[in-house]
Amino acid sequence: MRVLGVDPGLTRCGLGVVEGDLGKPLRMIAVGVVRTPTSDEPATRLLALQIEIDEWMARYEPDAVAVERVFAKANIKGIMGTAQASAVPMLAAARLGLPLAMHTPTEVKAAVTGNGRADKAQVTAMVTRILRLDTPPKPADAADALALAICQVWRGTAQNRLQQAVAAQLAHQTLGASR
Amino acid sequence: MRVLGVDPGLTRCGLGVVEGDLGKPLRMIAVGVVRTPTSDEPATRLLALQIEIDEWMARYEPDAVAVERVFAKANIKGIMGTAQASAVPMLAAARLGLPLAMHTPTEVKAAVTGNGRADKAQVTAMVTRILRLDTPPKPADAADALALAICQVWRGTAQNRLQQAVAAQLAHQTLGASR
Repeated sequence: MRVLGVDPGLTRCGLGVVEGDLGKPLRMIAVGVVRTPTSDEPATRLLALQIEIDEWMARYEPDAVAVERVFAKANIKGIMGTAQASAVPMLAAARLGLPLAMHTPTEVKAAVTGNGRADKAQVTAMVTRILRLDTPPKPADAADALALAICQVWRGTAQNRLQQAVAAQLAHQTLGASR
Repeated sequence: MRVLGVDPGLTRCGLGVVEGDLGKPLRMIAVGVVRTPTSDEPATRLLALQIEIDEWMARYEPDAVAVERVFAKANIKGIMGTAQASAVPMLAAARLGLPLAMHTPTEVKAAVTGNGRADKAQVTAMVTRILRLDTPPKPADAADALALAICQVWRGTAQNRLQQAVAAQLAHQTLGASR
């Protein structure tokens, strides 16, 4: 299973692709940050982000996309840009018919560090360890994107296994009933 | 000058196309509302909105796009959807290289009614009068989209005339200086 994690933003948008399966070591396929100049119009910045994300989709062909769920913060103007930026990977996933998951920062932190209130340094440290990287991914947006992808690989594969187990159980019961 | 006005939203997105020039009567070309089911995933709803807006762009070929600027309201969850929905016409305008204007509700109300605090009924009444419509556009989102387009036609043409006047004045001065 290959997941593209997106930490949305107009100034910096973190992108990370992680491949793996539950119980097996995860592998980083790619990581990066898309930056768009604050001097550009918001619509121009959105388009630049879309072009870049579409390119990542074509190049890395993820099986699923995980995007950080945007929440209210102090800076309401910043939120609007972030919410608009989050629409870009959402549209890309919908257009390609890929499963899309939206995770809150708390869910992601809990998934990779075991603590929903972990700080950025702790998240970066765990992402580095989980993916067995030589150097920590920088900036924080890149590490966050990888953390989102890791969270989704674990959740997604756990969910798949659960579904398979339930399906197997149902099949077993049906077989039993038909005997 | 032909403007597509967009009152963004996922549940209801108002679309209105207005054609006109400063000092001449305005004409409504089209009006409508895109609805997407609340039971669908947000990404699916965004994609449905994008398909519809792209179709309007192709069918009505506007010269400019005007989108309502999203602001903080009480319902923070609703805002996120609205902000994400506003990214769709922004991306469409940027992709086609069309001028894009973002107007606040206050600016739009002031433009069509003379009062930035006008209520929805007043905006609808003035839109109906300005466009000489037989029946008031419904729902309010449709009227708001037309109001946005009207606001932009007036602002845009006024701005063009000002620029032309400044250019003419500069040309005159340059001519005078070169004599």
